[in-house]
Amino acid sequence: MGLCGLGTVGQGVVELLRRNQASIDVQAGRPIELVRVASRTPKPMVDLGGAAFSTDLADVINDPQVDVVLELIGGEADARQLLLQAIEARKHFVTANKAMIAAHGDELLPNAYEAGISVGFEAAVGGGIPIIKTLREGLAANSINWVAGIINGTSNFILSAMAGKGASFDDALSEAQALGYAEADPTFDIEGVDAAHKLAIMAALAFDCPIAFPAVYTEGISTLTAEDIEYAQALGYRIKHLGIARRSARGIETRVHPALVPEQRLLAKVDGVMNAVVINSDAVGSSLYYGPGAGALPTASSVLADVIDIACNRAARPLSINGEADRLNMAEVDTAYYLRIPAVDQPGVLAQLAQILSQNAISIEAVIQREQAIRVTGSTSWVPVIILTHRVQEQAMNQALETIQALPEVVGQITRIRVEPLDEHA
Amino acid sequence: MGLCGLGTVGQGVVELLRRNQASIDVQAGRPIELVRVASRTPKPMVDLGGAAFSTDLADVINDPQVDVVLELIGGEADARQLLLQAIEARKHFVTANKAMIAAHGDELLPNAYEAGISVGFEAAVGGGIPIIKTLREGLAANSINWVAGIINGTSNFILSAMAGKGASFDDALSEAQALGYAEADPTFDIEGVDAAHKLAIMAALAFDCPIAFPAVYTEGISTLTAEDIEYAQALGYRIKHLGIARRSARGIETRVHPALVPEQRLLAKVDGVMNAVVINSDAVGSSLYYGPGAGALPTASSVLADVIDIACNRAARPLSINGEADRLNMAEVDTAYYLRIPAVDQPGVLAQLAQILSQNAISIEAVIQREQAIRVTGSTSWVPVIILTHRVQEQAMNQALETIQALPEVVGQITRIRVEPLDEHA
Repeated sequence: MGLCGLGTVGQGVVELLRRNQASIDVQAGRPIELVRVASRTPKPMVDLGGAAFSTDLADVINDPQVDVVLELIGGEADARQLLLQAIEARKHFVTANKAMIAAHGDELLPNAYEAGISVGFEAAVGGGIPIIKTLREGLAANSINWVAGIINGTSNFILSAMAGKGASFDDALSEAQALGYAEADPTFDIEGVDAAHKLAIMAALAFDCPIAFPAVYTEGISTLTAEDIEYAQALGYRIKHLGIARRSARGIETRVHPALVPEQRLLAKVDGVMNAVVINSDAVGSSLYYGPGAGALPTASSVLADVIDIACNRAARPLSINGEADRLNMAEVDTAYYLRIPAVDQPGVLAQLAQILSQNAISIEAVIQREQAIRVTGSTSWVPVIILTHRVQEQAMNQALETIQALPEVVGQITRIRVEPLDEHA
Repeated sequence: MGLCGLGTVGQGVVELLRRNQASIDVQAGRPIELVRVASRTPKPMVDLGGAAFSTDLADVINDPQVDVVLELIGGEADARQLLLQAIEARKHFVTANKAMIAAHGDELLPNAYEAGISVGFEAAVGGGIPIIKTLREGLAANSINWVAGIINGTSNFILSAMAGKGASFDDALSEAQALGYAEADPTFDIEGVDAAHKLAIMAALAFDCPIAFPAVYTEGISTLTAEDIEYAQALGYRIKHLGIARRSARGIETRVHPALVPEQRLLAKVDGVMNAVVINSDAVGSSLYYGPGAGALPTASSVLADVIDIACNRAARPLSINGEADRLNMAEVDTAYYLRIPAVDQPGVLAQLAQILSQNAISIEAVIQREQAIRVTGSTSWVPVIILTHRVQEQAMNQALETIQALPEVVGQITRIRVEPLDEHA
């Protein structure tokens, strides 16, 4: 192996290989040796054993002893370049880089397959959970209906802290940063971009279609309030940040957003930085895969599992056999909704809201309008009206909310969060 | 493929293959055809397509068109015979037969490997959950510390019904039988034999040692009472029937028994006929795999996943590379305990119990002795004393309980159930 990148994950790979060298060799059926390492940092912080070291990534590609290139440098453009060079040099390639695979997999994975090299990216989704292998191999005889997962540990940590302690989003984010679970610039995690990368990859494997990262609808968690989390709990739900990919007769939908999940679902009970993915398929029904979604050693575990697969010649099929599929845009997607509507506290307002929803063919499942929640802003006495709806197409909801938002009785911005009942075994 | 056995699972394989034929062929990289079926029942109940049918299993082995034999007949001796014939005839072999693999795997799997044939048994453990693949491949770079799972759906259904409705064991069993979740003779499920078969197989894969089924300590659930489930809940635990395999410096322990699991663990929340397995390993920590542990289509999913792996030439390594390992017998195993001791209701009895435990170096974590629980038998007024202990070696507990059971103040049989805290991410 040749290793490009000696950050957290790169160092984890070096450590795990040293620790479990003997059993890894047995599992691989041959010795797995790290012969060369390249990193932009001139001084390696870990003992590299007998591996040669340089600061030029090309040295790894060009080393004739290197059969498998590990790309752990991160970043899209440089990693793409490295994969192109590996394809050119006919070297197998293992990466933890979800951004690169999501953005460039459609372009490059077919080339890699044609060149006869394997590209392993188990570590790109779900950290140490073998979710790529499960989608590709474990459930290979199934037709997959949907995938729904908690696939960003940072967001899940923040939501767990908000739910557990009633913390605000900002306070929970600060705690995550203090504990090293969120970066100084947390945008990719909290705005759902990281989850969207992972979801796009899972959807491609689940439905045998292109990765199509731009097609993923993405909403983060930064606008969620402790109040919504509390109302959700009162209604028997937890709010989780989910990546959801679903195939129906109308097309494939891929979306990342906060969602109310019934509290009795296992997914609702996954707290902290842990990840979990439910796969619903025709033969198995729902199955769930849970574990650490990040971290040096869990990610290294998946990187080395890919290396062992390559050493054992357990080749993966190419992606996107079926070509592009119909895709639903978000306006066409069906979900149920949680709405929080700040409305003046006077008789008839709820009837008015219900009528507008009804005119848009939206039926109501539950309403909460608490006396104790009455607030006064200036001379206006208002109350948050909480409404749970049944499933409806998003465009009907968009229309209804446009009408409701324009009512003089509605005194502030409406909050809407989708509701995902999943299934009883999720 | 040639299929032996047309029971529930055999019919499931025929149905799933027909349903997903096109995508299965894509995943396998070649057409997967069922060319011959044999069953002791003369009239097949399903449409076999173009497959030839006979009542002689040998016809499947001898058919030159058959590359992979599916053994779905059940039973140990006949299935062992079939595997021997397959090895002789150099045919790959896929089975859902946990009893046969547990009893004869140590003898036959090395022969199969030497003969160059693959033996797939994903369906033998965890139904539709790809747990064998996860142990062998997904976590291949890890050193596994322990495996703990709910691996018998019948027992879990019964315990869930007892916990949810306060039902007695007998009533819950009757309900399971009425729903088809328990057989008319439920012994294998409720006495833990089925779980022990599965645990022995998982332990061999986790620790690269022989299957050694006779080494598994096995206790079922038939002596559990609604009272113990209630006390456990009062102490913050659920009672689950677990299979546990653990490796320590002292040796490998494999055991199947009821256990108190902290209520906040995901495993504690797995209800009904579902299965779930936690694998704790050095790089990943705890990861969990959850899904249906039985049923025609989930099992067929695993059978056909094995066939696809064989078609893709994704060969599995041989088992038990490391030869026999040290094994702990149950007396040497460390666990915490829940004790229910029926003792006369008089001052000083608790002090006496505590002293005997202390003399055996057993420390107490919690005690419940409820005034309301006082009962009268004949002229004796007695109370169940519930004690939770810290971890101790089983032989110390055996000694302590022998002394306690002999006390005149103890008026009935002591109940003991092990406590498994697992870890916070289990």
